[in-house]
Amino acid sequence: MIAVGDELLEGRTADTNSGRIQRALGQHSVQVGGIQVVPDTQQAIMQALDRTTVGDIVFMTGGLGSTPDDISRDVVAEWAGVDLPEDATVRKQLEKRWARLGRKAGVGVQRQCQVPDRMQAMTNPVGSAPGLTGELKGRILVLLPGVPEELQGLLPLAVAWLNEQGFLPAERQTLLWRTGQIAELSLVRKLEDVVGKFPGFQWSWWLTPWGVDVRAAADINQTEILSQLSDLENEVTGQLGSLVYSRKMHSLPEVVQSLMLKKNLTLSVAESCTAGMIGARMTDLAGSSGFFRGGILAYADPVKHNLLDVPLETLDNHGAVSQSVVVAMAEGAKKRLGTDYSIAVSGISGPGGGTDEKPVGTTWVAVATPERTFAGLYRFPADRERNRLLTVAVAVDSLRRSLEFGPMQSPWNDDDTWCLLSR
Amino acid sequence: MIAVGDELLEGRTADTNSGRIQRALGQHSVQVGGIQVVPDTQQAIMQALDRTTVGDIVFMTGGLGSTPDDISRDVVAEWAGVDLPEDATVRKQLEKRWARLGRKAGVGVQRQCQVPDRMQAMTNPVGSAPGLTGELKGRILVLLPGVPEELQGLLPLAVAWLNEQGFLPAERQTLLWRTGQIAELSLVRKLEDVVGKFPGFQWSWWLTPWGVDVRAAADINQTEILSQLSDLENEVTGQLGSLVYSRKMHSLPEVVQSLMLKKNLTLSVAESCTAGMIGARMTDLAGSSGFFRGGILAYADPVKHNLLDVPLETLDNHGAVSQSVVVAMAEGAKKRLGTDYSIAVSGISGPGGGTDEKPVGTTWVAVATPERTFAGLYRFPADRERNRLLTVAVAVDSLRRSLEFGPMQSPWNDDDTWCLLSR
Repeated sequence: MIAVGDELLEGRTADTNSGRIQRALGQHSVQVGGIQVVPDTQQAIMQALDRTTVGDIVFMTGGLGSTPDDISRDVVAEWAGVDLPEDATVRKQLEKRWARLGRKAGVGVQRQCQVPDRMQAMTNPVGSAPGLTGELKGRILVLLPGVPEELQGLLPLAVAWLNEQGFLPAERQTLLWRTGQIAELSLVRKLEDVVGKFPGFQWSWWLTPWGVDVRAAADINQTEILSQLSDLENEVTGQLGSLVYSRKMHSLPEVVQSLMLKKNLTLSVAESCTAGMIGARMTDLAGSSGFFRGGILAYADPVKHNLLDVPLETLDNHGAVSQSVVVAMAEGAKKRLGTDYSIAVSGISGPGGGTDEKPVGTTWVAVATPERTFAGLYRFPADRERNRLLTVAVAVDSLRRSLEFGPMQSPWNDDDTWCLLSR
Repeated sequence: MIAVGDELLEGRTADTNSGRIQRALGQHSVQVGGIQVVPDTQQAIMQALDRTTVGDIVFMTGGLGSTPDDISRDVVAEWAGVDLPEDATVRKQLEKRWARLGRKAGVGVQRQCQVPDRMQAMTNPVGSAPGLTGELKGRILVLLPGVPEELQGLLPLAVAWLNEQGFLPAERQTLLWRTGQIAELSLVRKLEDVVGKFPGFQWSWWLTPWGVDVRAAADINQTEILSQLSDLENEVTGQLGSLVYSRKMHSLPEVVQSLMLKKNLTLSVAESCTAGMIGARMTDLAGSSGFFRGGILAYADPVKHNLLDVPLETLDNHGAVSQSVVVAMAEGAKKRLGTDYSIAVSGISGPGGGTDEKPVGTTWVAVATPERTFAGLYRFPADRERNRLLTVAVAVDSLRRSLEFGPMQSPWNDDDTWCLLSR
């Protein structure tokens, strides 16, 4: 892939198009071999094209607009040694568009009617610049506009063209397990035996904001390998148990929201060290008002007493980062906001505030169910920012487990080891 | 720049590191010439290194971890034809870290003690993998871990190293104005005349999470141009007035925290649509417990009444997204948490909930000072996620202005136009 544009090299605009194309191609088992981000100069674009290999599918994004620095079309024609004539069909379509918008077409815009020889234009459903496809110099070229909305409109047409031409490989069958509260290395170790037993599959491991994803994949024409699929699925699912929060592409907040709505339950939060980060994530998705009521940010200790009814002597005797305080916080939020469930967290995020007994990273998480309140003690190994993010991840995952295990059962298992010191 | 990692080519993980490095280098007038994103293979990394040119500064990110696919260190050593011995200082530091975390170092982790000959290690303030710098094969190489938090921790050290070694171009004198509550286009227009009057300077405009930054820069050897510096500074500063929240690289939360601490004031929040995002940002920095007390997430209307004392008839008569409700929320938080100041927000983030009278994006923001409570009505033009982020930005900036203007004065000016409908 070649992403063209000075703005992509100035730290202001992120190249989000490459991700879109990667995902679209990934569904067709095409692995992107590399990305080059280059400035709007003839030399840089030529060099990037030269670096591709005969046989490659090359997606080039950007530089198809109407301003003088939009030169991708011209450079591709020059690189391939083909002419760049005006295309009558494209002109007709663009003239219709200009008429509809009540615009006169200047010289720049008229360049968008040009199509390199041996390439075809795809009508842009959103903007004016057509996408271009074709085989040149042994490469399968797809040129798309850099404006994300226009690219998104044209991408399905480009993929369909690749498919029709037989340029896309066999589809893959993929199994996915999204896990929380386990480190990548522990997960790899946990599945070591299964991975060894099914060597025909491609395995991959991904860190996410909520934990680690595992994937096992095989081409759909590898029938012998695919016959092992359900055995593999049973073994991995059995090994991972409640570490798995989703088998589809759902995020942890999506899973929690859907469980809460399905069971018609309500949630409140009591946050100390995260000071709102859990509430923020619980309301990222539309429809969150169906279960999320609100919460108390009890950053200062008097707030824990005044608004969450944590007894002053509990704060004095055990300190704010303690089992009895976090339990009282969860129960206080549940009662004050009248919800079925609540989550509470209290921890030392750092950099200051750590002691020998309670070093930086020490964090209590509590989940109050309609029946009982459970608390777990974590110790996170990172800095302030990351410790707070890890706190959010384990708190939300502990709620997810609690919803799955039922209100009488602890959300933590005997073999939980990841940063969990006690429960 | 070379970004190493299979995950960057599979459409799930965006390469955010390149942007961070681009911005850090941009401050030192270094323009990034291109980015290569490559998979975790020896061949691909070698090829990417070969494509760089003698004299280049090459930032390589990723592949410094402890798993078998982390091979950047090894490939660089092989590419340059140098040995890869263990570094005693690095081992000592990492052993201290492992001991603190109560971990035993496996073989993988021990590889992180290796440093290619003619390179130097920079201690990682966040994780274990050290950054590596050095001159090899005529390139100035900087190797940084791919984990964004670790990269962010090491990046200032890497830039400082480049600077000490004289690898950064002539220093520029730069003036900076960080502004909030104005759109980029309006800012450009506001400064059109000044920009025209001082053509010798390079002007740049950057969107940030908190608003827009303006920079005017000139090389330190352009003495004639630099003689105009104080005239330019006076004109821009006069034009921008209270839009400017910082003249240094301080973020808006840093500015607010420092104002609150200096004046020895306390803050609480009452959040509806943002559900914790403001509290989260107010506590990002160490030391925030010196002024931030906590708050109420009043996502559901009964919480606004029960925990913030918003009268039921006010909610019934005006709706949750109204001036009287947001004012009552701010005053309720201030009273319940016993703080000097409070911020309250109530808005319709979308996608649902909009009406003709109050379309999606309609948002009330209130600031309660020790003396009075002020409310402003915004209408944001974006989707749920962005509307919530814009709400956080204007709420925090309105508090900043209130602290600067004093407790009797509205935080909004007559000529505020950005998304502000009334006040």
